[in-house]
Amino acid sequence: MKITIAQLNYHIGNFEGNLQKMLHAISEHHTTTDIICFSELATCGYPPRDFLEFNDFISQSDDVIAKLCEASAAYDLAIVVGAPSTNPVIEGKDLYNSAYFIADGEVQYVQHKTLLPTYDIFDEYRYFEPATEWGIVEYKGHKIALTVCEDIWNIANENPLYVTCPLDEMMQYDPDFIINVSASPFSYKHPQMRKDIVRANVERYKIPLFYINHIGAQTEIIFDGGSLVGAPQVGIADELAYFEECIRTYELSDIKATTKANENSASKMDLIHDGLVLGLKDYFGKLGFKKAIIGLSGGIDSAVTTVLAVRALGAEHVRVVLMPSQFSSDHSVSDAEQLAQNLGIQYDIIPIKGMYDAYMKELEPLFEGRPFNVTEENLQARSRGVLLMAMSNKFGNIVLNTSNKSEAAVGYGTLYGDMCGGLSVIGDLYKMEVYALAEYMNKDYEVIPVNTITKPPSAELRPNQKDSDSLPDYEILDEILLHYIEGRKGPKEIIDMGYDEALVKRILRLVNINEFKRYQTAPTLRVSPKAFGMGRRMPIVAKYLS
Amino acid sequence: MKITIAQLNYHIGNFEGNLQKMLHAISEHHTTTDIICFSELATCGYPPRDFLEFNDFISQSDDVIAKLCEASAAYDLAIVVGAPSTNPVIEGKDLYNSAYFIADGEVQYVQHKTLLPTYDIFDEYRYFEPATEWGIVEYKGHKIALTVCEDIWNIANENPLYVTCPLDEMMQYDPDFIINVSASPFSYKHPQMRKDIVRANVERYKIPLFYINHIGAQTEIIFDGGSLVGAPQVGIADELAYFEECIRTYELSDIKATTKANENSASKMDLIHDGLVLGLKDYFGKLGFKKAIIGLSGGIDSAVTTVLAVRALGAEHVRVVLMPSQFSSDHSVSDAEQLAQNLGIQYDIIPIKGMYDAYMKELEPLFEGRPFNVTEENLQARSRGVLLMAMSNKFGNIVLNTSNKSEAAVGYGTLYGDMCGGLSVIGDLYKMEVYALAEYMNKDYEVIPVNTITKPPSAELRPNQKDSDSLPDYEILDEILLHYIEGRKGPKEIIDMGYDEALVKRILRLVNINEFKRYQTAPTLRVSPKAFGMGRRMPIVAKYLS
Repeated sequence: MKITIAQLNYHIGNFEGNLQKMLHAISEHHTTTDIICFSELATCGYPPRDFLEFNDFISQSDDVIAKLCEASAAYDLAIVVGAPSTNPVIEGKDLYNSAYFIADGEVQYVQHKTLLPTYDIFDEYRYFEPATEWGIVEYKGHKIALTVCEDIWNIANENPLYVTCPLDEMMQYDPDFIINVSASPFSYKHPQMRKDIVRANVERYKIPLFYINHIGAQTEIIFDGGSLVGAPQVGIADELAYFEECIRTYELSDIKATTKANENSASKMDLIHDGLVLGLKDYFGKLGFKKAIIGLSGGIDSAVTTVLAVRALGAEHVRVVLMPSQFSSDHSVSDAEQLAQNLGIQYDIIPIKGMYDAYMKELEPLFEGRPFNVTEENLQARSRGVLLMAMSNKFGNIVLNTSNKSEAAVGYGTLYGDMCGGLSVIGDLYKMEVYALAEYMNKDYEVIPVNTITKPPSAELRPNQKDSDSLPDYEILDEILLHYIEGRKGPKEIIDMGYDEALVKRILRLVNINEFKRYQTAPTLRVSPKAFGMGRRMPIVAKYLS
Repeated sequence: MKITIAQLNYHIGNFEGNLQKMLHAISEHHTTTDIICFSELATCGYPPRDFLEFNDFISQSDDVIAKLCEASAAYDLAIVVGAPSTNPVIEGKDLYNSAYFIADGEVQYVQHKTLLPTYDIFDEYRYFEPATEWGIVEYKGHKIALTVCEDIWNIANENPLYVTCPLDEMMQYDPDFIINVSASPFSYKHPQMRKDIVRANVERYKIPLFYINHIGAQTEIIFDGGSLVGAPQVGIADELAYFEECIRTYELSDIKATTKANENSASKMDLIHDGLVLGLKDYFGKLGFKKAIIGLSGGIDSAVTTVLAVRALGAEHVRVVLMPSQFSSDHSVSDAEQLAQNLGIQYDIIPIKGMYDAYMKELEPLFEGRPFNVTEENLQARSRGVLLMAMSNKFGNIVLNTSNKSEAAVGYGTLYGDMCGGLSVIGDLYKMEVYALAEYMNKDYEVIPVNTITKPPSAELRPNQKDSDSLPDYEILDEILLHYIEGRKGPKEIIDMGYDEALVKRILRLVNINEFKRYQTAPTLRVSPKAFGMGRRMPIVAKYLS
């Protein structure tokens, strides 16, 4: 019995595109396999979110299943694919999140998902009814346990989130192996967690597990692939590539017998770098855009963003604009120019003085001699934002946002100014991680001018401004933010770790009162276990630590 | 037995403020009641969203419960209050959404919520484990069924969303009456639905039902109050005020015997008007702001927004800016001036020509003779946005967004331009509803200049522009949008209703491809059953009807 894992890049709602991609894989591999496996909700892409509430959307997914049934007959193979299915009972949610087993022109079996992740970026209980029945499917003399993603994450019922263990239920039928169709999103911690889970499952059940993941990005969510073959004797018998499509076929008896393990090796920065490149590439590709534009300040955030954009889109599709003000230092322009030259990308210099003066000419009479403050700082940032958006509108380049997670956290940025753009590329990297990524990019040769990395960070919106005028050192700031955002610790717990009380209270307050800014910023490519955006939902009008 | 409904305005995370509000109600009413009832999650405010994941947050809520226990002893009365409670079992979610019954200095009974709304704006299953046990509490010889909000919305198990009916379970203990602590958000359809539900419950169970709702707005969600007393003989024995705090005490035997019904009467426009005024008022009040600033175009959207702001904040706290361009008609400025004078608010006129010219001076060499297009239109809108934000920064006024739902739906607005602002006031009103609200505002005297209502709508961003150049008549557009957004109908279903096929496809495509704009706009005060924002979650990168 041969089993093929097809790790493919789907596109939400692109039923025809997703179908063609699956049919192509089938036509390429049908002669060398018995079962080809696609991933969770592969017909419609993941996460389809509220499109699932449209009957028309579900009916288009059903049409894809019908076409796959035809293909199973025409190519004489079995197909495992994830798709929504309609709950025939009036009570409960209208849909299940299901794994279909298709063979001989028909749907032979449908197993619904039991454990519906409803935390962080996940909203599955919003749409789906959980399974309450479990079975297996028999094919060519083999008994197969079908599972969907989270269903294998409650080993021995020890995951505190859940009270059911679907595989424990299925084991009464004595399956020969397990298939898991997944859409398991990337964070730099996730490939390891995923392998630990697959390992623990094969240890417990002593049968192979074929784990098929998505790859590709859908707005802010990146899927890294890394599909897995779990084998009883070795844990992980094989791991497919990260961040690219990959199709591979396995002989079941070989996997049962294998004593050879095979895992990818990738550092945190390998993963983040490649994940962000894919995130960028798919955001543009799936929206039908090719070209990016970035405001290049000479600082590290815009430099790292630009390098990522060039790697994702190609130098010919990335354009940058240097927009110096009276407060810009000489090295800002020269560092930015150097980077543009290193990358071979088009750049223009547009000083913002004319715009700034035009605003101030009208505003000064109304400002009645009030002193220079954040207003005038923001005016500079917003003049730049408007220029970038004008270039975007005229030439069709998407503006990339260059904010990092530290500044997004404490609100150290200007709404509609430097916080503008269609996609936040490094908004899930704390400042110290941005530095680490810059060093990583420079590991073979100096792409990013070393001066951009070594100079003290500055917004350059008033004379001799430094980030350290307003914020603690990023080493400290990032640690406190990590405890609060990822760790969900309260002020007392963080202070008890030894941080300065006043500083902790100030930082937590800044995070909370700046929710209004984050609410209006671009989607942020998620690379950590807790990113701003759909995975962290906070009220704006609140009075907690603020 | 006397029961008091305390319909109060809570503030998320403001534990001390919420506690003081409850203690004040207790100290004012303890001599004339036996049980005082507050609403769902009253300790922490509703919806607390991901703050529920912080142990520190839960512990502060527990402290409020402890203080209410003390008060129950000190004032010798029973207290019913909603609060999160910790799930002592490892398996399942960490929290319950609970109704506490407090008396004699102690928590006497806790009933957890069973039906956890997880749709539209609700995410309760993200945080809470559903109840699987049901009981009643006995107090002063009476048996009381405690329920939380949604728990009474599955009458006879006929709500297709759920498979359990908590009150059916409780009836085996033969309770004398029902208390329901709620946080039931407003839409113009909701007061009627809520009364129908209470009526159906008392019809089924033949005992009184005391229904205690929140009032007050929390960011985009408005709670309208309208707490209810259901009585077996008449259905609705009493309905408390909409959109204001209200405390009222009832004698149980009177309610059991009453033959007199009493309900509020309010039109759709009464509800929308008063709801938006409260939404504005609480957004400012709970954030600690007083003053708003609005760009006044002479058109109907900014006029209606300004009237609402004045009614919520007072004329002295609302300031407007008229920002004419070369394309502005004379009547735009005069209509806007007339409105400002009618309302007695401060207004300034800042022509945007200087800023527009300054941008174009720098951009024209780069634009290489490309024709005037949406770029130059957006430049005007964005120059205005930057001016408003500068005024906001200098004077501390929050900019109000004036977009309506029709234009937000089809993307007829400029990101960072007219789509800027801290709060979208009328973003859940289709254009025809904005007209209806303007007429409603003018019912006693002409607040909004009649010319603002009767002239053809125009963005005035190029010569002689009219909305009808780009969009179908709003009567038709709004109907198609309603079928798609509220009705969740697909293209075939809408075309089958008799609308033009090409038009339907164009409109639905516009809605979907403009998700990226809505993603970055301000929270929108929700007045309909399906508003943009947290209640409608869509992927940006998708290819469905687009």
